[in-house]
Amino acid sequence: MRLSPADIVFYDLFTASAQNLRDGVRVLSEALVPDADRAALVPTLKDIEHTGDEHTHDIVRRVNSGVRTPFHRDDIYRLAGALDDVLDDVEAALDLMVLYRIKDLPNGVASMVDVLDRAAELTAEAMPRLRTAGELTKYWIEINRLENEADQTYRRLLARIFSGEYDALTVHKLKDVIETLESAVDGFETVANIVEQIALKQS
Amino acid sequence: MRLSPADIVFYDLFTASAQNLRDGVRVLSEALVPDADRAALVPTLKDIEHTGDEHTHDIVRRVNSGVRTPFHRDDIYRLAGALDDVLDDVEAALDLMVLYRIKDLPNGVASMVDVLDRAAELTAEAMPRLRTAGELTKYWIEINRLENEADQTYRRLLARIFSGEYDALTVHKLKDVIETLESAVDGFETVANIVEQIALKQS
Amino acid sequence: MRLSPADIVFYDLFTASAQNLRDGVRVLSEALVPDADRAALVPTLKDIEHTGDEHTHDIVRRVNSGVRTPFHRDDIYRLAGALDDVLDDVEAALDLMVLYRIKDLPNGVASMVDVLDRAAELTAEAMPRLRTAGELTKYWIEINRLENEADQTYRRLLARIFSGEYDALTVHKLKDVIETLESAVDGFETVANIVEQIALKQS
Repeated sequence: MRLSPADIVFYDLFTASAQNLRDGVRVLSEALVPDADRAALVPTLKDIEHTGDEHTHDIVRRVNSGVRTPFHRDDIYRLAGALDDVLDDVEAALDLMVLYRIKDLPNGVASMVDVLDRAAELTAEAMPRLRTAGELTKYWIEINRLENEADQTYRRLLARIFSGEYDALTVHKLKDVIETLESAVDGFETVANIVEQIALKQS
Repeated sequence: MRLSPADIVFYDLFTASAQNLRDGVRVLSEALVPDADRAALVPTLKDIEHTGDEHTHDIVRRVNSGVRTPFHRDDIYRLAGALDDVLDDVEAALDLMVLYRIKDLPNGVASMVDVLDRAAELTAEAMPRLRTAGELTKYWIEINRLENEADQTYRRLLARIFSGEYDALTVHKLKDVIETLESAVDGFETVANIVEQIALKQS
Repeated sequence: MRLSPADIVFYDLFTASAQNLRDGVRVLSEALVPDADRAALVPTLKDIEHTGDEHTHDIVRRVNSGVRTPFHRDDIYRLAGALDDVLDDVEAALDLMVLYRIKDLPNGVASMVDVLDRAAELTAEAMPRLRTAGELTKYWIEINRLENEADQTYRRLLARIFSGEYDALTVHKLKDVIETLESAVDGFETVANIVEQIALKQS
């Protein structure tokens, strides 16, 4: 497979977008360190979100310009949109923690963010392999495994916050944060499914 | 680009569907006026929803009949379905307000419905431009801007209803209504994304 | 229409997947019988979910292997994924009932599971008709009708659990279960929409 320079730009943009998402998840991880100044991290993450929006617009503009694309236009939109959705959730999770003035988070939250961290790393590593038609099955399987793991943690977290330990409003707030994290994990699975389908069409 | 009469029917149906959705959002706006008789507006909105269902079925039947379509069949289904989803949310929001016997809504709710009103107007105006291949980028950018604006309002509304001002059940009820409105706003963004993709493929 | 043996395998796999989903819904129905030992049914349903995962992987592997497919690759992924999503919801609903130690469920829950039961039966019956290009419109219309019916039940159930009869934590738990069932019903509609689109493309 020979790639034109125009093709390479798309792969580079997706790689940049996935690396930017990984940076965003790292900020979220920092926010969970004990005594982290979460409010101070909000603008950092907003900046990363804006960078992500620029990558997305850049990708869409290039597709619009009518250049040849290395894979189907619809798949490019879907992949760009899916990466964008995950970053939106990551940003929303931190925003809600700060907005709701949540002090202590139940333990499972850290392990959900840990799953996000690993999923973000795997996704950033997988993106360049889309270009070289490298092995992507392991990435896809591992993301699916992580999603199942996070799903178990998520349900156990719900049972925990409904145990009677928290007051009614705290239950609402924690549930919102946890659901947003769960949505981010699901978003990484959506990204992986789109990547897999693109890879299959190329093979 | 020359359009056959068969093509024109599709554009007219989508325009009618978007205008019907705009009518539905207007009923929701009326329901937020102080001292509005919300229960009396429920059947009006149900009628509009049925009209919407008829537009959708009409579109699907025409695609099924095997006539030439002005754009890809899948995109026709997706656009019809996406317009339908927004109207479902609009109808659900009013239904929940009445069913839950909610009297006073926090201020932000009116500004979310205001966003819906502007998005519905923009969408109804954009639909005929799909036929003439008119400018759609501004529509798409403006819908995305409105969605971001509504997102901020939505999160601030959540923080407000979790502030301790409302009792536990009212929190649940308001949250449901607000989430349904947020879903309607997201739905307009989905419509805009599909319209943009159709426009790009035509260009 | 003449089908190759390779084509027939896909129809058989989708039929098996839909029958497995129907088995899963039956276990959920059993869990709602008075004095049912719900915890004992969890591993049964997990086994059915694993069987479903195997069907999905089998379908994906076959598509990957490059054999001719009886309908578009993307539609195969979407249909396999949509059937999988419904089973995930069914399994989650039972898991949450057990995890939250819910004893009594409001009446409407049984009628939502009844809708799931009828939808699962209709879906399992429809799948082989995809192969013979049999009548699918009635299936599609009936699933849409069931979804509307469940939607009404769902909203009335929400109003019921917000009526003041239940304590704050029970409200949260019941709402989670009910929303998961609603998501499963919606999932059957998604499956029906994909089936309809595949049937239309074949006709």
